[in-house]
Amino acid sequence: MAVPTLDSAALRADFPGLFTRDGAPWHYLDSGASAQKPRAVIAACARAMGEDYATVHRGVYSRSAEMTLAFEAARRRVASFMGGQEGEIVFTRGATEAINLVAQTWGRANLKAGDRVLLSVLEHHSNIVPWQLLRDQVGIVIDVCPLTPDGRIDLDAAEAMLTPAHRLVALAHVSNVLGSVLDVPRAVALARAVGAKVLIDGCQAVPRLPVDVAALGCDFYAWSSHKLYGPTGIGVLWGRAELLDAMPPWQGGGSMIDRVTFAATTYAPAPMRFEAGTPAIVEAIGLAAAIAYVEAIGIPAIHAHEARLVALLRDELRAMNAITLFGPEDSAGIVSFALDGVHPHDLGTILDEENVAIRAGHHCAQPLMDHLGVPATARASFGLYNDESDIAALLKGIARTRRIFG
Amino acid sequence: MAVPTLDSAALRADFPGLFTRDGAPWHYLDSGASAQKPRAVIAACARAMGEDYATVHRGVYSRSAEMTLAFEAARRRVASFMGGQEGEIVFTRGATEAINLVAQTWGRANLKAGDRVLLSVLEHHSNIVPWQLLRDQVGIVIDVCPLTPDGRIDLDAAEAMLTPAHRLVALAHVSNVLGSVLDVPRAVALARAVGAKVLIDGCQAVPRLPVDVAALGCDFYAWSSHKLYGPTGIGVLWGRAELLDAMPPWQGGGSMIDRVTFAATTYAPAPMRFEAGTPAIVEAIGLAAAIAYVEAIGIPAIHAHEARLVALLRDELRAMNAITLFGPEDSAGIVSFALDGVHPHDLGTILDEENVAIRAGHHCAQPLMDHLGVPATARASFGLYNDESDIAALLKGIARTRRIFG
Repeated sequence: MAVPTLDSAALRADFPGLFTRDGAPWHYLDSGASAQKPRAVIAACARAMGEDYATVHRGVYSRSAEMTLAFEAARRRVASFMGGQEGEIVFTRGATEAINLVAQTWGRANLKAGDRVLLSVLEHHSNIVPWQLLRDQVGIVIDVCPLTPDGRIDLDAAEAMLTPAHRLVALAHVSNVLGSVLDVPRAVALARAVGAKVLIDGCQAVPRLPVDVAALGCDFYAWSSHKLYGPTGIGVLWGRAELLDAMPPWQGGGSMIDRVTFAATTYAPAPMRFEAGTPAIVEAIGLAAAIAYVEAIGIPAIHAHEARLVALLRDELRAMNAITLFGPEDSAGIVSFALDGVHPHDLGTILDEENVAIRAGHHCAQPLMDHLGVPATARASFGLYNDESDIAALLKGIARTRRIFG
Repeated sequence: MAVPTLDSAALRADFPGLFTRDGAPWHYLDSGASAQKPRAVIAACARAMGEDYATVHRGVYSRSAEMTLAFEAARRRVASFMGGQEGEIVFTRGATEAINLVAQTWGRANLKAGDRVLLSVLEHHSNIVPWQLLRDQVGIVIDVCPLTPDGRIDLDAAEAMLTPAHRLVALAHVSNVLGSVLDVPRAVALARAVGAKVLIDGCQAVPRLPVDVAALGCDFYAWSSHKLYGPTGIGVLWGRAELLDAMPPWQGGGSMIDRVTFAATTYAPAPMRFEAGTPAIVEAIGLAAAIAYVEAIGIPAIHAHEARLVALLRDELRAMNAITLFGPEDSAGIVSFALDGVHPHDLGTILDEENVAIRAGHHCAQPLMDHLGVPATARASFGLYNDESDIAALLKGIARTRRIFG
């Protein structure tokens, strides 16, 4: 089946953030950090904060009942978007909280001193530090899977490293620096062979690849709304129902309880058990609107579009003969590179003058920077609204930078 | 100095949520659950999600730098609003997360088996369950301060209960059920006399009373944006700088680190140490807009206005001779009551037909319901937009309910 092509120029009109103060095009190549929001999402949030506003799960009046329906419909929309069940979707503050939640509930309940967790060199800090905190708390051991020369998690190495002492494999689906895509089913098969569970950090995958947790076979899958063209302040933890059901609560408060007395408190079933307090109501509704927006376009079309832009940009950068390219050729929407003799921050600053936004820095992946032997990279990351005009602006800015640094 | 009176009828025009689908007035008396949002807040969020959108703390381009300035300006606005310092403001998912954060960082680092925490009978579940979870984890002992006959936390009883084994006193500034106001400076003095720290749950106080943590003298103060006419998805923990500085991290991830290696990670200073991951950027900016809105009106004026409405409603309910009133006469903006022979849920449902929204239930305060000997109460809670017309509609609805249940 042919994947439809995107008319990014037309789609850009949906995103008020893609223009400068003067109304000129803003060449936004930092969607890997956070995506711009379409008007449909902004409008859904404004409506939910305005004429539709009420709290959820509590009111006896009809507006609150309607808001509760909308909030739970958002949960179902998230579930169907990623191939999970409604009861397996926990709304969190973001992907970071989702991973911390797994570490502090499943991890504390199931891991003991000497148990091993396999991460990889390319993980984002959000999939490293929670396990280090758990290491400090219970004495787990963290192993670090190396990368292939082209920047993929080396699953052959993982296969050789995994032992029955490994209780968890926690890996990024798509590297936020290199764009390399993990073969999740193979990672799951390797983990299963030693009896380990699998957590996938899907922050960069969900906006770029069709994600179906049932097909992937993993146990936990974490991602954030704001990278999927949705609101800040909300993320998603999908967890296999039987795992969530057996996990102890993490944060205590309203909504997550069954019955509270000072002597003893009993807890609500999952997912409510993990959603203490008034939830991010407006944000959940905005996230549902973001999913509706990207589903109308189609994730396969977005993926094909970004893959085409990656190939084009890599070819153009390679032709410059002054660029180091990181990551594999088939990167998913993300291109990290270095310009000889120019610090990425200097490049980013000059590009900013040209209305081109890239990210320059360690990308919350300092161990990967250490591995690459650089303090920082320049990173262009694509969204559904980018096209060749953005690449042309980036290349023009790089050319100007080369002239300046002569 | 005379406190200016509010023109609530005029202010209502600022709140698109205060009308029914047909454009009729909606008598919203559930601001204690969550407040409606003024257009200024909705517009600030829409702008932050739209033409101003970028991530914070990371981008080398000017829009991200501007967004970072706006985000940190929001932190300063919160600090000055509540009498704290900028570095003492931690943005959380909500008040619930704020209290859990204190329990899991300060609590785990400073409390051991046998140490005692004093709560009260009227606490919200969000200020009970986090301490019960900590009890299960480290073996602290929870003591429960009783109430005076009119529903205040009985500080004479607290004085008699407190011992040097008490390391923390954690109390609500304003009861979410009874509206009773805690004498925080006295509670602090009692706690100080035994060397205990003081955490105040300020969710219901911040929208209703001038709050100045420097004057109150407490150590931690937690509240949520959505009850202060601000966005969902964000809350505030204020903590005394020397306490925050000494607290270990809780959630790991981006932004909260100094340097990450797999061998060892070092952490950023407070408040960043406690803000792992991409923050609730839009929500922080919306919260700053909410503070600007209420400061323009003036919290003293809002307090006086709500106090007048409380007195009026209590007088009218008392005159009905079929009502049990809970809580003290000088309740801050909240009136809980029972209508003889009618379950609060039935009352709430009938009122809904009259476009009157109250809350009926246990209000996430089951121990207080047990103490009052009721499964639930009906609760009317006021916001700056309420006035006599809302009380008249409520009374009309109660009269109709009495006829129905006749």
